Amino acid sequence: MTDSPTTAPAAPTASAGEVLTGYLTRQAGVFLRALPQAVGEAASRPGSLPASAAGADDLLRAVRRIGGALHTFGASFEDDWARDVRSELRWLLDLLATEPGYRGRSLRLLAAVDSLSDTADAPGMLAGHAGAPKARALLERQLTLSRTRAHTALLQELRSARMHALADRMTLLAGDVPLLAGPAGRSGDDLRAAAGSASGALQAAVARLPLARAAEPYGGDGLRRLASVPAARSEAAGPLPVAEAVLAADDEPWHRARVLVKRARYALEVCGESTGADGLGELDVILGRHHEAADAAVTAAAAARTPRITPATAYVLGVVHADQRLEVEAARYAFGRRWPMLPPALGGAVAAPPTARTE
Amino acid sequence: MTDSPTTAPAAPTASAGEVLTGYLTRQAGVFLRALPQAVGEAASRPGSLPASAAGADDLLRAVRRIGGALHTFGASFEDDWARDVRSELRWLLDLLATEPGYRGRSLRLLAAVDSLSDTADAPGMLAGHAGAPKARALLERQLTLSRTRAHTALLQELRSARMHALADRMTLLAGDVPLLAGPAGRSGDDLRAAAGSASGALQAAVARLPLARAAEPYGGDGLRRLASVPAARSEAAGPLPVAEAVLAADDEPWHRARVLVKRARYALEVCGESTGADGLGELDVILGRHHEAADAAVTAAAAARTPRITPATAYVLGVVHADQRLEVEAARYAFGRRWPMLPPALGGAVAAPPTARTE
Repeated sequence: MTDSPTTAPAAPTASAGEVLTGYLTRQAGVFLRALPQAVGEAASRPGSLPASAAGADDLLRAVRRIGGALHTFGASFEDDWARDVRSELRWLLDLLATEPGYRGRSLRLLAAVDSLSDTADAPGMLAGHAGAPKARALLERQLTLSRTRAHTALLQELRSARMHALADRMTLLAGDVPLLAGPAGRSGDDLRAAAGSASGALQAAVARLPLARAAEPYGGDGLRRLASVPAARSEAAGPLPVAEAVLAADDEPWHRARVLVKRARYALEVCGESTGADGLGELDVILGRHHEAADAAVTAAAAARTPRITPATAYVLGVVHADQRLEVEAARYAFGRRWPMLPPALGGAVAAPPTARTE
Repeated sequence: MTDSPTTAPAAPTASAGEVLTGYLTRQAGVFLRALPQAVGEAASRPGSLPASAAGADDLLRAVRRIGGALHTFGASFEDDWARDVRSELRWLLDLLATEPGYRGRSLRLLAAVDSLSDTADAPGMLAGHAGAPKARALLERQLTLSRTRAHTALLQELRSARMHALADRMTLLAGDVPLLAGPAGRSGDDLRAAAGSASGALQAAVARLPLARAAEPYGGDGLRRLASVPAARSEAAGPLPVAEAVLAADDEPWHRARVLVKRARYALEVCGESTGADGLGELDVILGRHHEAADAAVTAAAAARTPRITPATAYVLGVVHADQRLEVEAARYAFGRRWPMLPPALGGAVAAPPTARTE
């Protein structure tokens, strides 16, 4: 990942409008350069799947940043326009994120089976287990199928009229950002206040996370003691099996925090503010790991419901499922350790952060 | 558990022989009082199994302490006699520990299935999973069968000629401890030196444990990155499946440390030394948990090999297996945190122990 922050080089005396224009035209430029590359990548490999797609990754990053800026600094833009563009960017984001999501899940789950079977220097808990190669093959087959479908859908949508309309909007944005005259004329400090709101929203969301529960390692937060979700326990819990509905509801506030961390991070970028950017970047990575592990656990559980698999395969998938929930728990623990180390303005503790070991 | 240390009330000026005689006659007395109670408990419930057996537990505790003292202070006794008695005590120890072992494993595994399904205030990872009740019933059935067999074997052996011979030896021990004249006449400090050897053996064993690997929570020590055990990976690994042979070899040094912690603890008891006794007691509990979880994981894995189980049942057993290996990992982490807090003479770090959190 080269998801490095692109700090705005705006002068300290620049007005809010100048800062936003600088940031958005730059990001729209990234979008427009990445788009044909992403289309080319998708089209050039009709059968196979690229190991990674630089164009699509760049496009995804620009989409996230433009959407984040339009959300956080919404008061500076014409309302309907910003809402429309954000909605189209969200559509493209979902589309772009799906295949890399399956790719990451595939890498993660196959690595889990492999490292539970054998690590570089030592065998693991499933070494020699008859179910391990079967479970691996099953996961690989199912995830490759999902990736292929996502890839086909992406290729189709990248050439759609909807995509062309969005690209047109980005072309306009690269030339001229439709700012409201009032807010745009104010000083750059106004932007800092809006960025402060973004970190305020993050702090409020983190305050509702069960951080105390996740503070003790091996507290079983990922596997047991999940948040009470009475609705999900009723018979009418919908198509998801009860356990997964419960887990999804338990993971949801953490997924929400991930979105808010990204938003707060991009807001700092817009303001050219570097204090705390690294911290938010680390939290972003931690919550990305949380997200990926939670998805991977669902995939393992779903694979275990494949008809006609052997008990040995199902057993290995159960081990892998628990292993991924353990990664969820580990990510929550890591988040709880890292969060208080943010600068106080971003929500960190004022006191020195606790350290794990003194040596 | 009422496994409280029984500190020897010997006078500070007592000779080594006086101290050992006081301790061993007392423990032999406990043995002789507990034995008929244990036999009665075993016999009075031919069909059912007692939830706990106070007589058998007392007997087990006396057996451990007498065996430990004969080992640690072996130089004070006639060699052949001490070796014979220790060998018979080990036989009885294995016999007595088997049923409580299955009892503990049963409680642990059923609690794991239950708490993964539903905890007091919140549903867990397996909530509503079709395999959970089946896996629970399977584990309960298999462990009850094992318990019943162990119980029958115990009842039979408690009435055997071998047992009567051992009881006769304990009767003699309660009246007269066969000490060697030379060592017995020395001062009580001699005993402290022998107790020091017991903690030295513990320290050497702990130095060989992969404590650094277990120091970071969620390091995957219980599930991945196991010690390299080339022999266990060969095709000729014996009747155990490879993964279990590997795990058993990985757990072995920790099980060995558990024996040495007990020995060091009982040696302090003999000397009437209370410094560090609590610490060793806590480490004993932690390693007991380690031992129980490792055994429970093996049981879950073995249950998953039961013919004709459904994939859903096997899946749940895989989750439970991983969950118990996680408990193994958590116990190692807890041991690594607790060990440096022992008094330096027992192997602890001289510097202040690291603390998890400062608040």
